[in-house]
Amino acid sequence: MKKNPTKDLIVEAAIKLFNNKGFNGTSIRDIAGLANVNIANISYYFNGKQGLLEYCYINFFEGYLEQLEYAYLEKNDSSKEKLKKSVEAIMSYQCKNIQLTRFILREVTIDSQIVREIMSTYYVKEKYIFTKILESGIEKKEFNQMSISYSIIQLKGLLSMPFIHSYYLTDVLHVFVNEVYFEKKYINEIYNWIDKVLCINTSELSIIN
Amino acid sequence: MKKNPTKDLIVEAAIKLFNNKGFNGTSIRDIAGLANVNIANISYYFNGKQGLLEYCYINFFEGYLEQLEYAYLEKNDSSKEKLKKSVEAIMSYQCKNIQLTRFILREVTIDSQIVREIMSTYYVKEKYIFTKILESGIEKKEFNQMSISYSIIQLKGLLSMPFIHSYYLTDVLHVFVNEVYFEKKYINEIYNWIDKVLCINTSELSIIN
Repeated sequence: MKKNPTKDLIVEAAIKLFNNKGFNGTSIRDIAGLANVNIANISYYFNGKQGLLEYCYINFFEGYLEQLEYAYLEKNDSSKEKLKKSVEAIMSYQCKNIQLTRFILREVTIDSQIVREIMSTYYVKEKYIFTKILESGIEKKEFNQMSISYSIIQLKGLLSMPFIHSYYLTDVLHVFVNEVYFEKKYINEIYNWIDKVLCINTSELSIIN
Repeated sequence: MKKNPTKDLIVEAAIKLFNNKGFNGTSIRDIAGLANVNIANISYYFNGKQGLLEYCYINFFEGYLEQLEYAYLEKNDSSKEKLKKSVEAIMSYQCKNIQLTRFILREVTIDSQIVREIMSTYYVKEKYIFTKILESGIEKKEFNQMSISYSIIQLKGLLSMPFIHSYYLTDVLHVFVNEVYFEKKYINEIYNWIDKVLCINTSELSIIN
């Protein structure tokens, strides 16, 4: 994240308003009002509302992939540990950017030109990393034989659910994503999924042997 | 679902347009055009666009809960089997109503009066059923000791992911939710999660004994 207080204030205000009123329901005037900046600043920094939206996307996905790549490239012989490091990196990033994550995850469910571009750049890279980790784990007999695609669906379902459905968590389950406790506990739940669903169960193995 | 062809045509056209252009980006005129009906019909049956939206919500959740309650109330001594029946009922319902499911799942991520009402009626009932099944499974030593809320987060993440992120599945993973193959295979993936993550592993048990 760049250190430009005015720019950051505008982005923060925009995300809050996009989440509450939707992108179409939010005006440049609303954003300037909430950020307490002059409207001209928004044109200057982002070239309007569409530019601001694109900045949010790029800002989110550049940071997201940076964290994921960092975990992926770290030296680690175990695919299981590599996957856990990746999960931790993603969850930590998403918990640090709850509002932005929620907004982006909802936006990418809509079919649009910009979403298609994101899919073919960022999500294809993400898929590449997950696929490499899963394939190498299968090869090394750490993971069960599995459909890579169907495992990615589940992993991404687990990673995104608390953020995209944060109102559900708060209002129905009374689970609060912004508490430190949540991040730790939920990461452990995904670790458990990795251990039990993906990994070859060593106690089963010892019975077969 | 009621058997009124005009009404059904309007709803079908509306869901398609809401998914592609968003609720705010869709006009009554667009809907009438796509459904090939007179605009007056939409006012007559739904009292306008907001009424049509509410009809979609109620239509979806009444059918959803009917299927879930049916699976829940069926006589079955095993909590594991009861949960699997519930998963099958939900997946089957969602696969039969892919467009509507996608629309509803995205809509409930926005904080609004109608969404809060849905949370406090339908989602609270759903939570009640899941909680009862999980609690009775823990009591009967079929399921591990677990946090009910965190298990519901995971279950709902797995159930909703392919529908809310259907573009991702199609464009990035090349998995097609509308194929019969998908429904069967994905239900089995969730069964696997139930067996491995929720259920007490009997092979581990036999080692302890």
